[in-house]
Amino acid sequence: MQSVLDYLKQNETRFIRELCDYLRFPSVSAQSKHKDDLAACADWLVKRCREIGLETKLCPTEGNPIVVAKTPRHRSANRPHFLVYGHYDVQPAEPFELWNSPPFEPRIDKGRVYARGAVDNKGQHLAHLNAVEAFLKTGTDLPCDLTFVIEGEEEVGSTSLGGFLKKNVKDLRCDGVVISDNGLPSLDLPALTYALRGIVAVEVVLHGPSRDLHSGIFGGAVDNPAMALCRLLAQLRDDKGRVAIPGFYDDVVPLSAYERKQLARLPHRDREMCKFLGVPKLFGERNYTTTERRSARPTIEINGLTGGYQGEGSKTIIPAWARAKLTFRLVPNQKPDKIRAAVRRHLQRLCPPTVRMEIESGHGGEPYLVSPEGAQAQAAMRALKRSFGRDPILIREGGSIPIVNEFKRYLGADTLLLGLALPDDNPHSPNEKFDLACYTTGMRMGACLWPELSKA
Amino acid sequence: MQSVLDYLKQNETRFIRELCDYLRFPSVSAQSKHKDDLAACADWLVKRCREIGLETKLCPTEGNPIVVAKTPRHRSANRPHFLVYGHYDVQPAEPFELWNSPPFEPRIDKGRVYARGAVDNKGQHLAHLNAVEAFLKTGTDLPCDLTFVIEGEEEVGSTSLGGFLKKNVKDLRCDGVVISDNGLPSLDLPALTYALRGIVAVEVVLHGPSRDLHSGIFGGAVDNPAMALCRLLAQLRDDKGRVAIPGFYDDVVPLSAYERKQLARLPHRDREMCKFLGVPKLFGERNYTTTERRSARPTIEINGLTGGYQGEGSKTIIPAWARAKLTFRLVPNQKPDKIRAAVRRHLQRLCPPTVRMEIESGHGGEPYLVSPEGAQAQAAMRALKRSFGRDPILIREGGSIPIVNEFKRYLGADTLLLGLALPDDNPHSPNEKFDLACYTTGMRMGACLWPELSKA
Repeated sequence: MQSVLDYLKQNETRFIRELCDYLRFPSVSAQSKHKDDLAACADWLVKRCREIGLETKLCPTEGNPIVVAKTPRHRSANRPHFLVYGHYDVQPAEPFELWNSPPFEPRIDKGRVYARGAVDNKGQHLAHLNAVEAFLKTGTDLPCDLTFVIEGEEEVGSTSLGGFLKKNVKDLRCDGVVISDNGLPSLDLPALTYALRGIVAVEVVLHGPSRDLHSGIFGGAVDNPAMALCRLLAQLRDDKGRVAIPGFYDDVVPLSAYERKQLARLPHRDREMCKFLGVPKLFGERNYTTTERRSARPTIEINGLTGGYQGEGSKTIIPAWARAKLTFRLVPNQKPDKIRAAVRRHLQRLCPPTVRMEIESGHGGEPYLVSPEGAQAQAAMRALKRSFGRDPILIREGGSIPIVNEFKRYLGADTLLLGLALPDDNPHSPNEKFDLACYTTGMRMGACLWPELSKA
Repeated sequence: MQSVLDYLKQNETRFIRELCDYLRFPSVSAQSKHKDDLAACADWLVKRCREIGLETKLCPTEGNPIVVAKTPRHRSANRPHFLVYGHYDVQPAEPFELWNSPPFEPRIDKGRVYARGAVDNKGQHLAHLNAVEAFLKTGTDLPCDLTFVIEGEEEVGSTSLGGFLKKNVKDLRCDGVVISDNGLPSLDLPALTYALRGIVAVEVVLHGPSRDLHSGIFGGAVDNPAMALCRLLAQLRDDKGRVAIPGFYDDVVPLSAYERKQLARLPHRDREMCKFLGVPKLFGERNYTTTERRSARPTIEINGLTGGYQGEGSKTIIPAWARAKLTFRLVPNQKPDKIRAAVRRHLQRLCPPTVRMEIESGHGGEPYLVSPEGAQAQAAMRALKRSFGRDPILIREGGSIPIVNEFKRYLGADTLLLGLALPDDNPHSPNEKFDLACYTTGMRMGACLWPELSKA
């Protein structure tokens, strides 16, 4: 084992250079203009996996291809088999002007690499790949078989992954899934995440007149779709952040006293978070701590709002339409389809007769909850302790990794969530970064994990 | 007089060609990138005025220059002096994709010219210029002195005009102002407009976190500025279009029974307007007709709404900020400054402590009202009858021509509003057009106007 850790140390510089190479691809899955960049990024990844010594295939889908890379000479009957998941696609980088350096030209500063996708998720799964390289190149016995499944549609709802798992159940059936696509409170506080929020995305468009109208000539005669939209959206949430859609909270499993106690272990100060986020005041439901609200309570967010004239100066119109992109974060046991139907029903009920409403369903993902007391979770906790040199904690996370539920559904496997993102990494935001210390510690964690997990 | 009318007829083709030349300038005053286009457009106009035989000056301002063109040999002591106002700047043409042909490449189809600025206002003041050309070129005596004042900042609040009038009071003092920058119900129903709405523009920005945040990681902990904005704006208007700002209606002069009767003469059918505008249903305050609501009642409109991710697909963020462009249409005797203060006060009262609000004051213009029974109005009615061959009607208009109040304030002159825009001309909208019949009849109206007005 020491030779694996030594190898990781010795090759650190190259691993960092390779991460930068990987980050140069603008693999933005939400924007069709980046289709070729996604393909090029996947090709780079295939090449990298083959260099490591993995048996690698690029599997086409109806969307972006999935990279599947296996440790050689699988003997699945005799040894445990684990799957490592990651995604090579990234969020859009807009607004570009808020980046301190171009999002697809990785910049290293004070031990951090800045680029879109650095932490979400290229850096995190590359750490796992590097760990496996160390086993293979040093000739150290890996006590298990591993399959890496790295997709290119995570940021647009992993549309192709479910079908892919279903079609390849025989090949992919495994004893557990490992994902590092989430966070830890700090390098001193490694964490196993035992619950995730789910998500439902909905887009609402209100159509008014067939074209923008002069607000002097027609103002007073027709409804304003932007105002109608504001009035509609305003009714979806109260002034404390509680979602005002009938039935929305019906299936929410209340937090147990034990969970609330565990979550309270996570260091947090409202005042520091205010300062870090630049908000005048935190916000949210009464009777829940900030940690609870952001990880264990459902929410509604307006992700985007568009209507009328957006340019410089003034344009005196009644806009023809207005649009909102909405997402709801869900908690166990809320069901995306049920929530989507409730949202749709409520919007339809609220929509005034003076505009025409169009509702587009976006992606959805179920919330996730697994007991942290199982044998694999305990094995992961040991690996965390060894690699970080610190006692790990148990947390819930507010983000969504919808495919965790697909692994359960199709492969019957639970997922160990071993995130390497620090709280200030800005995933989905300008100036996304990844700490190189998280990258290198993450490689060690990957190395320590397989022996522990294989014993579990 | 017949020779004037004959001249107009004989030169129609050239006048149409010249209109098209004028429309090719993308003189969009709201967008700083068009600064040079505005200058080129003003130069073209100066040249045109000189060809007509007018003594023409290009007067620089802090903004776009003003074109001043006078009939030769002014003898102001002996003869009446009238001012004709127009503007060579135009609204932004966005959204370009909704135009059937490029907005700055005039297209003539079925007796209409399609282009941004065709009706608002290039075509309308060019008709007046052509009428004067006919007097000058045929050697027909003009019974009055005329000064054309054609500015380039009307669509951004005529910032420079007031100061210009003030500085040139001696030169511009006149017996009346004529403006064709508004509408008539149809070619069969020429109209004198006796009232206009005013306007106040306000921009509201709500700032939340210092950058867009991952909605999974932070959702539940901080307020969403887009949602906060929607909730704020929703409280500015009720579901029937009544503005819900304290004091907003305090100064509104109620419509008299006589006025309501006059307004009812204007042909209007709700069902036809629905169809023309493409809305499922008309909208507005109870107890007012559609004509009253759109011309004689104040309104609030959201002209533009922006926040978060606007692109393709989904981006799961809490946006850093959200913005709304608002305008209020005012009626006599609402005061823009007083309304602006009331809006600001109300917004500040409503703004939650979880976001930071920024309010930017935009342009403003007072409403206008003049008695239709004066001598000049009666003279204009006679000119309308002669040129259109139809009995004119009296109307109020919902649009704003703020400078009408500046002519009153600085020059002490009332304004005759003799609009040539048809209801389907789409000013401020894609596919703006001007009927060539309005253009040619407008020239005749211009010709008939000066003898009548000079007698009044």
